[in-house]
Amino acid sequence: MTGAGAGMAADIDEQPAGYDRLLSAEHAGAIARVAAVIAERRPRHVVFTARGTSDHAALYGAYLTEIRLGLPAGLASPSAITVYGARPDLSDALVVGVSQSGGSPDLTEVLRAARASGALTLAVTNAPDSPLAGAAELSVDIAAGHERAVAATKTYTAELLALLMLVEGIRAGDGALPAAEREALAALPELAARTLADPTPAQLAPRYRFAAQLVTTGRGYAYPTAREAALKLMETSYLPALAFSGADLLHGPLAMTDPDVPVLAVVGSGPGGRSMGEVLPRLGERRADVVVVGSAEVAGATRMAVPEVDERYAPLLDILPLQRLALALALARGEDPDAPRGLKKVTATM
Amino acid sequence: MTGAGAGMAADIDEQPAGYDRLLSAEHAGAIARVAAVIAERRPRHVVFTARGTSDHAALYGAYLTEIRLGLPAGLASPSAITVYGARPDLSDALVVGVSQSGGSPDLTEVLRAARASGALTLAVTNAPDSPLAGAAELSVDIAAGHERAVAATKTYTAELLALLMLVEGIRAGDGALPAAEREALAALPELAARTLADPTPAQLAPRYRFAAQLVTTGRGYAYPTAREAALKLMETSYLPALAFSGADLLHGPLAMTDPDVPVLAVVGSGPGGRSMGEVLPRLGERRADVVVVGSAEVAGATRMAVPEVDERYAPLLDILPLQRLALALALARGEDPDAPRGLKKVTATM
Repeated sequence: MTGAGAGMAADIDEQPAGYDRLLSAEHAGAIARVAAVIAERRPRHVVFTARGTSDHAALYGAYLTEIRLGLPAGLASPSAITVYGARPDLSDALVVGVSQSGGSPDLTEVLRAARASGALTLAVTNAPDSPLAGAAELSVDIAAGHERAVAATKTYTAELLALLMLVEGIRAGDGALPAAEREALAALPELAARTLADPTPAQLAPRYRFAAQLVTTGRGYAYPTAREAALKLMETSYLPALAFSGADLLHGPLAMTDPDVPVLAVVGSGPGGRSMGEVLPRLGERRADVVVVGSAEVAGATRMAVPEVDERYAPLLDILPLQRLALALALARGEDPDAPRGLKKVTATM
Repeated sequence: MTGAGAGMAADIDEQPAGYDRLLSAEHAGAIARVAAVIAERRPRHVVFTARGTSDHAALYGAYLTEIRLGLPAGLASPSAITVYGARPDLSDALVVGVSQSGGSPDLTEVLRAARASGALTLAVTNAPDSPLAGAAELSVDIAAGHERAVAATKTYTAELLALLMLVEGIRAGDGALPAAEREALAALPELAARTLADPTPAQLAPRYRFAAQLVTTGRGYAYPTAREAALKLMETSYLPALAFSGADLLHGPLAMTDPDVPVLAVVGSGPGGRSMGEVLPRLGERRADVVVVGSAEVAGATRMAVPEVDERYAPLLDILPLQRLALALALARGEDPDAPRGLKKVTATM
């Protein structure tokens, strides 16, 4: 494929190979060594800092940290440190900067200030020689290779997988993943390839050709997916896409939904998916146009089906049809998703 | 005023009196006593949990905590605890639930789990007899009185002021505010009344009568204001309104802006406002329709001017014209902002 969207299409298609690469002995071993250092240093809480797409990977990392490690986790606003000069005492914390380029000066400054205050610092990037990686004590290479399109796809999922391997390595204590975990992870490249082979996203794209807006929703592990899907649709199709956790949707923005507002609901088969059980009927009452993404069977719903896995792994699969939908919709709307107007690959904010 | 929007208009108009009430000896004293307990217990970090409008007050609280107290602060996703059963070790933390109704079962469960794990817990609510206040060890009454409209206005700003008084009391150590702080706070009711007397918001509403979407932006202390303004516009006018920190806007969604997408930029005169200096020209390049809200003088910009105060206090004033804009726009679009479709005042999510 050449022409508009060829780069983004190639990036998307490379994700199964990217999972394979990151799971290889070389990269898994490097992540395990970092995990072992973190486990040994026993941080009391974890602070993530990131922007844009990487912020959604960081959000996934925060859920994993709370649920799998039993450690409080949160996302820091860089501006408290970079704009107001705050110097919070982070001596008990692990501070994790997530950035594909590793080139954002504000994230680098956050890691530098955190390290100076005694925090254990970690950079998760696709650029091991970047300023972010240089500022951090520890560094994980997500090894996604060169990303062609401005809109991030394969670097997002590589960040997810690296954070997952890291957290499970910390949970194991010595960084080495238990056999059951290794087995579940080893299945992901093939499951991702199967997910990407589904023609549904391209078939659904015309449905949104004239949509004026879009709502995405999900809970728990599915919420970062909803957020990232909304950003991808905005970046490539300039469609205002609003992401809400299922619970927040009921607290206000539900009023916005009506038959003219399409909703993409990310619903898996685990606890997060089941907790959407109260949200979907409310959307039904409002006669919203709902498409369900994920492994849950929802009676009567139009679906982009995804193979069933433990919800913890679902973000690595659920985003794939949504990336493909964003690509197909951008092309249907006459846009070039490889070169969105007004955007740069590395954004330098302080 | 009776009829559509009368309730929301009355709620909005009561905010200067609400500030006065909360600053009175009775309520300021109660907050000072809570602040003194927190200062004495010396939490190592602060975790906020909230939903909807209160989530934006919590975000303001997180900025205050990092900048004024030098303590790491973050917002927790209730679902890690309520949906996945995570039990993070919060024994070093102050966990703050913010909710006007105090009736959300998920926030109550978060406070209960946090308290069981040894956290110091605090409820900030407009309902001192609520389940949330009952679950927490400490409780602050924001004393905003009955809110008529479903869309929260006066309870939002009362939450902001209560959190500000609390943080400054903790900073002081014994809960008692320094004289300079008391003086600055005492000026707020009059400044709020002056802000509300400005006819600009109602004059600007027709500009957005046929807008298909809207973007709000701000950095630092102004970011919660941008988020809350977007939610208010969505709740009352069903207008998809996207809020971005100024930095995140440059990382992707900038592509969405063009002359057809109105932007409301919250820009004060302090560090956060100055850091928007890189964002406004980029919006200009895209020929976006920008209205500036706040105390900053921006050459050539259409403005909703707000009296100049330290940026720390600006959220208590900047939101006022935006609430009035949301009200006026809802009426212009034929909606009743007192009773948005599909919404309830207390939303019970688990």
